[in-house]
Amino acid sequence: MVNIAVLGYGTVGSGVIEVLRLNGESISKRCGHDINVKYILDLRDFKGEPVENLIVHDYSVILNDPEVKIIVEVMGGVEPAYTFVKEAILKGKSVCTSNKELVAKHGAELLELSKAQKVNFLFEASVGGGIPIIRPLNQSLTADEIEEITGILNGTTNYILSKMSSDNADFDTALKEAQNMGYAERNPQADVEGYDACRKIAILSSLAFGMQVDFEDIYTEGITGITDTDVLYAKAMGASIKLLATSKKVGNHVYAMVAPMLIKPTHPLFSVNGVFNGIFVRGNVIGDVMFYGSGAGKLPTASAVVADVVDAAKHIGTNIMTFWSSKKLELRDVKAVEHRFFVRVAGCDDKARALVNEVFGEIEEVKVDGREEEYSFLTGFLSEAAFEEKADRIGKPLSRIRVMF
Amino acid sequence: MVNIAVLGYGTVGSGVIEVLRLNGESISKRCGHDINVKYILDLRDFKGEPVENLIVHDYSVILNDPEVKIIVEVMGGVEPAYTFVKEAILKGKSVCTSNKELVAKHGAELLELSKAQKVNFLFEASVGGGIPIIRPLNQSLTADEIEEITGILNGTTNYILSKMSSDNADFDTALKEAQNMGYAERNPQADVEGYDACRKIAILSSLAFGMQVDFEDIYTEGITGITDTDVLYAKAMGASIKLLATSKKVGNHVYAMVAPMLIKPTHPLFSVNGVFNGIFVRGNVIGDVMFYGSGAGKLPTASAVVADVVDAAKHIGTNIMTFWSSKKLELRDVKAVEHRFFVRVAGCDDKARALVNEVFGEIEEVKVDGREEEYSFLTGFLSEAAFEEKADRIGKPLSRIRVMF
Repeated sequence: MVNIAVLGYGTVGSGVIEVLRLNGESISKRCGHDINVKYILDLRDFKGEPVENLIVHDYSVILNDPEVKIIVEVMGGVEPAYTFVKEAILKGKSVCTSNKELVAKHGAELLELSKAQKVNFLFEASVGGGIPIIRPLNQSLTADEIEEITGILNGTTNYILSKMSSDNADFDTALKEAQNMGYAERNPQADVEGYDACRKIAILSSLAFGMQVDFEDIYTEGITGITDTDVLYAKAMGASIKLLATSKKVGNHVYAMVAPMLIKPTHPLFSVNGVFNGIFVRGNVIGDVMFYGSGAGKLPTASAVVADVVDAAKHIGTNIMTFWSSKKLELRDVKAVEHRFFVRVAGCDDKARALVNEVFGEIEEVKVDGREEEYSFLTGFLSEAAFEEKADRIGKPLSRIRVMF
Repeated sequence: MVNIAVLGYGTVGSGVIEVLRLNGESISKRCGHDINVKYILDLRDFKGEPVENLIVHDYSVILNDPEVKIIVEVMGGVEPAYTFVKEAILKGKSVCTSNKELVAKHGAELLELSKAQKVNFLFEASVGGGIPIIRPLNQSLTADEIEEITGILNGTTNYILSKMSSDNADFDTALKEAQNMGYAERNPQADVEGYDACRKIAILSSLAFGMQVDFEDIYTEGITGITDTDVLYAKAMGASIKLLATSKKVGNHVYAMVAPMLIKPTHPLFSVNGVFNGIFVRGNVIGDVMFYGSGAGKLPTASAVVADVVDAAKHIGTNIMTFWSSKKLELRDVKAVEHRFFVRVAGCDDKARALVNEVFGEIEEVKVDGREEEYSFLTGFLSEAAFEEKADRIGKPLSRIRVMF
């Protein structure tokens, strides 16, 4: 029997208890040990609930109990999670977490500490909810040099963009619907501004390239600027707008960004709709692979946490090597990154057209019925810096979206 | 340094050497050891080629060299692979294989033997080429009870069906094109009759349910009966015909089958086209996940084999537990399995219609321009047995395809 403690009895924490109860028998078989939840740390008491007797309010009870071998940290946020996790590792306990803020900020350090302590720090649930992606990156794609990771890593924004497309809804209407469905929080900033996706791509990039990618260094743009008109144009091109978090090797450099982008049906992420997540990986020998599933939600996330608990229980006394050094990876200046851009400008008289053609050279015009008052087009490949300079010369565009084709 | 030997210098074997040469440096870092190919077993000599000095013709040289810790078996076929692999395990060597025939037939036994010998028998490349699926099933979905696995597991047939759909080609034309592109063998039987997919779903089902699923027990139907007219009807329904290999828990029973099926765009496998493979898994807590990538090909397959070598090298002296007992799983009789069916019958006069309606009850008619001489429809849910009995009463249909919606 392996004793564990769960820090935080919120959505994911209660999901962990539910999964262990529901599938306990087969989990024990696969694990080779019974998993016993000895403590749950929470500020609340949960009087009268089945977990009441497991609740403790004082972390030191857990920390100082040598019977507890694995800590499940599902509180979220950097502190006190970081302090708790570090103390646990130093006490020789393995930690399984769903906490993307913690992993993005302190992943490298906590992995090094775990290695030294011969315990494990596992975080499958921190990216892509239930989708197996951390373990495949660590253990299955070990023969490859990763060239690109591009993900739809935030279910809320994907739901909003899917809804805008399927219902011709504007951003505010789609956001409200996402909030009503419980897919978006009342303060949706972390999702719609791309901050959540940014932390997740920082984690994936660090693992893919084996060095510390700081999330603060990643250019991040959310979806609040996307309008129903943009979606109309996307459809006219047979394309779709997705909030993509991407990191890519170009020559000897890696760049990373989070931004809405236009993609076509030939891209495996095109059909990832609604609250689903998808993660596309290109390796130099495996070619293209894609992982798809529920990116959030109580049970899918708990499934990933419990799978980590199983792995930690199977590896008591042994560290599972993870390739993420604390050495900082200097990302390529985003200004130098090249894309095509989709651009809409107000006015489509001959003068406007002539100016666009003079500034951007060869462009591909995109037309949508009923929008004859604007001039919209796809540019050729341009660096971000070159695009900005050109955009300034034609006046502020109505919108510009990066293009993945 | 870890010494390995490669059995068979064919497509995959030479791919393994190429991947180790190309990515050797990062593989060593991830693995913690340098991987050294000490021998290659092949009947040929490869005079003048860089591998010439590694070639041996006598397996006992490899078997009796205690320095060789890992055997890569990429010969294919049950014998002599089975004998070689068994001997290697008994000598305390780990084995990594891409050989689906071997794994489907002897997987359970070789896993038990490996456990006893404290070595590893790994076979990521035996299903889905490079796509990580075996390791995710074994190590990432451990918190779940698997309810369904459905895969597009054969790139050749998926290419043919995609081509029939995109070019309105008939089966023979699409097959010829697949052969010209090198995607289909001159004798394409193992692919087009579904035998290849059958072995792969047997392996996945055994792992998902933890018991031996014999491939001989799996109802298998290929794609040679699919016509361009069927594809026209599929398009008219907004659907697609895919060769799906599926195993599913219904109540306390599992059924498994390989057959062409109609699926709609809402299914994640719908957009898996061309030579790509996709594997859809439904767990009772994780929900739906899907894995996508190159299902075959020299480098993708070699990527999976080398990832297994890395794992084996990291686990010398320790067995990675795999949950696949040799106890036979009795599959549900396929006759009891329920589907909807798409049916085409010759003749669409009132008499024919009346008979169909009398026999099948409520049906959904499907029309295609220029095919007014036939009567085509979707049935309600029927067991295979009930369908056969009803189909007999209306005379032999022009075609019938199972429906996934």
